[in-house]
Amino acid sequence: MRIDISEFGLQEGQEADAALAVFRALAASRTADNPELVFPKGSYHFFPERAAEGSYYITNHDQGGTRRTAFPILNRNGLIIDGQGSEFIFHGPMIPFILDNSANITLRNFTIDWARPMFEQGIVTAASETSFDIQLAANADYEMRSDGLYFEFGGGRLPVWGFHDIDPINRTHAHQSGDRISWNSFKKLKLSEAGPGLIRVTGDIRHIPRVGNRITMRFGRRENPGIFIKGSDKVEIGNVTLHHAPGMGLVAQRSSDITLRGFDVRLNPDSGRMVTATADATHFTNCRGTILIEDCLFENQLDDPCNVHGIYVRVSERISEDTLLVRFMHEMTVGIDFTGMGDIVRFINNESLLPYAEASVRSAELVNEEYMLITFDQPLPSAVGEYHVIENVTWNPDLTVRRCTVRANRARGFLITTPGRVLLEHNTISAPGAGIKISGDANSWYESGAVQDVTIRYNTFLDCNYCYPDWGRAVIDIDPEIENPESHEECYHRNIRIQENVFDTFESPLVYGHSIDGFTFTGNVVRRSGNYPMHGGRPYTIELRAARNTVITGNRFEGGEPRAALLENAEVNLPVES
Amino acid sequence: MRIDISEFGLQEGQEADAALAVFRALAASRTADNPELVFPKGSYHFFPERAAEGSYYITNHDQGGTRRTAFPILNRNGLIIDGQGSEFIFHGPMIPFILDNSANITLRNFTIDWARPMFEQGIVTAASETSFDIQLAANADYEMRSDGLYFEFGGGRLPVWGFHDIDPINRTHAHQSGDRISWNSFKKLKLSEAGPGLIRVTGDIRHIPRVGNRITMRFGRRENPGIFIKGSDKVEIGNVTLHHAPGMGLVAQRSSDITLRGFDVRLNPDSGRMVTATADATHFTNCRGTILIEDCLFENQLDDPCNVHGIYVRVSERISEDTLLVRFMHEMTVGIDFTGMGDIVRFINNESLLPYAEASVRSAELVNEEYMLITFDQPLPSAVGEYHVIENVTWNPDLTVRRCTVRANRARGFLITTPGRVLLEHNTISAPGAGIKISGDANSWYESGAVQDVTIRYNTFLDCNYCYPDWGRAVIDIDPEIENPESHEECYHRNIRIQENVFDTFESPLVYGHSIDGFTFTGNVVRRSGNYPMHGGRPYTIELRAARNTVITGNRFEGGEPRAALLENAEVNLPVES
Repeated sequence: MRIDISEFGLQEGQEADAALAVFRALAASRTADNPELVFPKGSYHFFPERAAEGSYYITNHDQGGTRRTAFPILNRNGLIIDGQGSEFIFHGPMIPFILDNSANITLRNFTIDWARPMFEQGIVTAASETSFDIQLAANADYEMRSDGLYFEFGGGRLPVWGFHDIDPINRTHAHQSGDRISWNSFKKLKLSEAGPGLIRVTGDIRHIPRVGNRITMRFGRRENPGIFIKGSDKVEIGNVTLHHAPGMGLVAQRSSDITLRGFDVRLNPDSGRMVTATADATHFTNCRGTILIEDCLFENQLDDPCNVHGIYVRVSERISEDTLLVRFMHEMTVGIDFTGMGDIVRFINNESLLPYAEASVRSAELVNEEYMLITFDQPLPSAVGEYHVIENVTWNPDLTVRRCTVRANRARGFLITTPGRVLLEHNTISAPGAGIKISGDANSWYESGAVQDVTIRYNTFLDCNYCYPDWGRAVIDIDPEIENPESHEECYHRNIRIQENVFDTFESPLVYGHSIDGFTFTGNVVRRSGNYPMHGGRPYTIELRAARNTVITGNRFEGGEPRAALLENAEVNLPVES
Repeated sequence: MRIDISEFGLQEGQEADAALAVFRALAASRTADNPELVFPKGSYHFFPERAAEGSYYITNHDQGGTRRTAFPILNRNGLIIDGQGSEFIFHGPMIPFILDNSANITLRNFTIDWARPMFEQGIVTAASETSFDIQLAANADYEMRSDGLYFEFGGGRLPVWGFHDIDPINRTHAHQSGDRISWNSFKKLKLSEAGPGLIRVTGDIRHIPRVGNRITMRFGRRENPGIFIKGSDKVEIGNVTLHHAPGMGLVAQRSSDITLRGFDVRLNPDSGRMVTATADATHFTNCRGTILIEDCLFENQLDDPCNVHGIYVRVSERISEDTLLVRFMHEMTVGIDFTGMGDIVRFINNESLLPYAEASVRSAELVNEEYMLITFDQPLPSAVGEYHVIENVTWNPDLTVRRCTVRANRARGFLITTPGRVLLEHNTISAPGAGIKISGDANSWYESGAVQDVTIRYNTFLDCNYCYPDWGRAVIDIDPEIENPESHEECYHRNIRIQENVFDTFESPLVYGHSIDGFTFTGNVVRRSGNYPMHGGRPYTIELRAARNTVITGNRFEGGEPRAALLENAEVNLPVES
C-alpha cells in the first residue's frame, strides 16, 4: 500500500521540520499491507527538536546518551521508503535512519546531507617551515578561545581537535600528510587569530601543508551515523547518496543479509566540501548472511570505506561451570548484542589467537554496556580463563563487493575480518593507506574474524599508501596482531587469493602478510603510476612471514622489474618472479 | 519460594561486589513461585562497574545518560526482597533499586547507605563580617583549582556549587541560613586554601555561619535516587532505612498503590554526617491509587520530605482535529509517561489555571523526551490552543500520611498537589520553610493537582520557617501561582480542613492562602515555642485572599493573643478569634 507522506503535514523548505510528519506516517503505516512510504520529490529538512529518540550502543561510535532520529524504523517487517529523488537535509546531531529489530526494509531514491556539516574547512594562504595560515570562509561561525578554536554545530560550540591537509586538485589527503596535524600531533600545535577569519598555526608542526591546499578541521565526536541498522534482517538500500554524516555513513550490527546497491558516500560537487562522512562509509560488526555491496562510490570520508568484522569479548570471570561473565574491551564496541541463544561461540587464547574449544549459548544477557553474562549448554573446558577471548562463530557474514570505487578518504580501503566467503571483484581502490587490510587482534581493538576464504580479483588498485607509513605497509596488508606468529603451529588466516588484478601505484610493496595458510598471488599486472615519489619505506614487493601453501606466479610487472619478495619462514610453492 | 541470595556467589565485605550475585539471583527468581530473595544478615557492597544498566527519565532528577542499578526489578509480578537487617552499601553513582513495569513488590528489612556520600562537610573555625574559614576532615580528598573546590565522587572530581550552614546541636539548617550561601549566592563567594584542608571563604557573602557550625558542601547532580519506581503497581516498602542517596530517597512516577511503612530517611548517628538524601526524601509524580506513608522519619535531606503532584504539559501544536503535540515544560520532568490509552485528561487555561474541557486518550506516544503525541477519542474544542496546558485526571493519588516525623531538612515539609483524598494525621512536622505547602502552577514548575479534599488533623507543627522567607510564608502555605486570583470566578483549591493540630512555633503566621473554596481552621492549639527570634516578616496569623466558605473557629491561642487575621476578598463564615 502506497502511503503519500504529504498527507501527514509534510512540508518542504528550510524552515519546515519534516520529522513529525515522518513520525506520524511511520506510525500510520504499521497497520498497512506492504506499506510503501513515498515522498513527493523535493527538499525536506529534519531537525532534532521534534525527532524521535532512543538509547543505542552503536558499534565503533562514541557511546552514551540518547540519539534523535528522523526515521525510527523499529520492530517492523516489510517497509519501503522511497524518496523519489528527494533531498533529506539534516540539522545538527541526529541519525537519519535507525532500523532496529526489523526485517525486509528497503530504502531508496534519496540523498542525505547536512545543512551544516560537522567539520569546517579553510584554505592555506601562507606557509613557512615553522607556521602556516588558514583562511576561513567569510561566513564561518568561529570563535578563538584561550583553549582552542571553536565552531558552531547543533546549537553549541565544539573545539577543533584535528586538521587534515587536502590537495584541492584531486581532493585527496595530501601526499604524506596522514594524521600528522591531527589527534595527538594536533595537541602540539598553537593556534591564534592573525586577522579576521585567519588562523595562524605555529608550535611543533609535523607536517606543513602547501599554500592553496584545503584544511578540513574536525570537531565533534562520531555519534550519529547516516543509517544505523541493529538486529535486523534483509535490508536493501538502493540509489541512496549520502553527502555527509557526523559519524559513519552506514553501520550495521548483529544484522543479516544487507544489500547496498548504488549507495554512494560522495562529495556534493555544488558544496565545495572536501569531506563526506566523518568516519567510515560503511561498517559491519557481528553480522551474518550476505553483505552485498555493488556499484557504490565511497569517497572522502574521514575513515575507511568499508570494515567488516566480528568482536572478541574477553572472559572476565568464570561464574560457574557453565556460566561466564565476559567483558567488551573496546570503548567503541560496548553494549552490542554479542551473542544470543543458540549461537556457537569459540574460545581463543589471546596470545596465539588460536581457538581451542567451542560451545553453544543457552542464554546471554547484557548486564551493562561493558559486561555480558553468558550461560552455555555444557560445562566449559577448564582451560577457559581470564584474558582468553570469545568470538561468535554463528554471526559472521559472507561479503561480496563488486564494481565499487573507493578513493580519497582518510586511512585504508577495505577492512576484511570475517571467516565468511569474501569476494572483491571489479572494484577500483585507492587509499592513502593500504587498499585492503586483513587484520584481527585480541589485545587492542578486539576485532575478530580470521579469514578463511578471500578472493580478490579483477580489481584495479590505484595509488595506495601515499601517506605511508600512517595506515599501511603495502597495498594489501595482512596483519593479525600476534606476537611471534612463527612460534604457533597454526596460522591465523587462510586462503587468500589475489588474482588478475591491476596494481597501478607509485610504490613497490604490494602485499605484506603473516600467519597465512594458503596464499595465492597470480595473474596480476603491476604498473608504476609515478604519481607520487616512492617512499622506499619497505624494500619488498611481497613480504610474507609464517606463511604456508603460498603460490606466487604468472604476474606481469610492467615499467620496471619488481623488487625481491621476502618470504621469511614462508613455504613457497613456486618461484617468485623477480 | 525462598531463595537464599548467598547461593549466587554473594560475598560480604568492603572488597566484594554483590551486584552480580543479585543480578543472577533476580534472573533465577523469574521462574520461581512467589519468589522471596533473602539476604543472610550482613554488610553487602555494591559497585557500579558490574551493575545492571538502563536508560531512564526520572522525575525531578537530572536527565540524560544511563544509570546503573544494583536491584533491577523489571517486568516482575510478585517479588519480595528481604534484607533480614542487612546493610547495603553503595559506591559512586548508582540507583540501589529500580522497579519498572512491576507489581506486587515488597522491599523490607535493610539499610541503604553510601560508603562515600555525594557531599562533603567541614567545621567553621573562624568567621568575621567579611569571611569565614571551613576546616575539612583530615582525610578529605579535595582539590582547590582555579575555578573552584573539587571533591572526589565515583572516581571523578566534582566542583562544589553550594554550602549549607548546619547547627551542630540540633542538626538543622542554621537560623536564617536558607540557601544564602548556595546556588547563585555561592557563585559570588571566593574560595581559597588558607592551610592544609582549610578553606577560606571571602567575596560577597550573604550569610556568615557561626564558628562551630558544620558546613555541608554540595557537589554532583541529582541523578541517582535510592529507590526509583516507574509504571508499577502495589509496592510496599517496610522497615527500610536510607542514610544517603545522591538524589532523592524514593521516587515514583505513573505508579499506583505505594505503601511506605517504617521507611526512614535518616542520619546514621555513627557517621557524623549532617545530610541524608541530597534531594527530597520521597517524591510522587502522576501516581494513582493510594500513597500510604506510615511511621516514617524523614530528616536532614537537602530538599522536601514528601512531594505529591501531577504535571501539566503544554499544548505545542494542534496536529489535527483529534491529535495534539504536547511538550514537557520543566527540564526535570521530561520523558515521563504522562498519559496512556483510556486516560481522561483535562484542558486548562494557563493563566487562570481553570479547566474548560475534558477528553479521553485514544493513544499516546513519546516522540522524544520533550514531546508527546496524543490522539483523543473525539475532536477537540476549538479553544484548545498553544500555551494551554493539560493535566491527567485519571492519574492522581489519594494520600495518607500518619505518625510520621519530618524535620531538619532543607526547604519545606509536605508538598501536596493532588485532587485525591488527602489525610495527614498524627505527624510531627518541622521545616526551615513551610510545614505544608499546597501549590500548583502552569508557568514555571508545571506541577498540577488542585486539591479537592485535604484534611490536616492531630498533627504537631514544631518550629517552621526558621529560614524565612526562603521557603514559605506561613506554617501552612497555600499558593497556586495565579496572577490576580480575585479576577477569576472559580477558586483553584477546594476543601482544606486544618483541625485539632498543635502549632508550637516561634512565629505568628500559621496559614497563608489564596484561591480556596472551603477552608476550615478549627480546634487548633497554638503555642509560642520561643526557640527562635520572631522574624516579623508577615503580620497576620491567618492570611487568606480570594477564599470562600471559610470557617475559622474554636482555636486556642496559648502564650499570647494571636495577631489579626487578614481575610482580603475572602468570605468568612465565622468570626476570627483575635
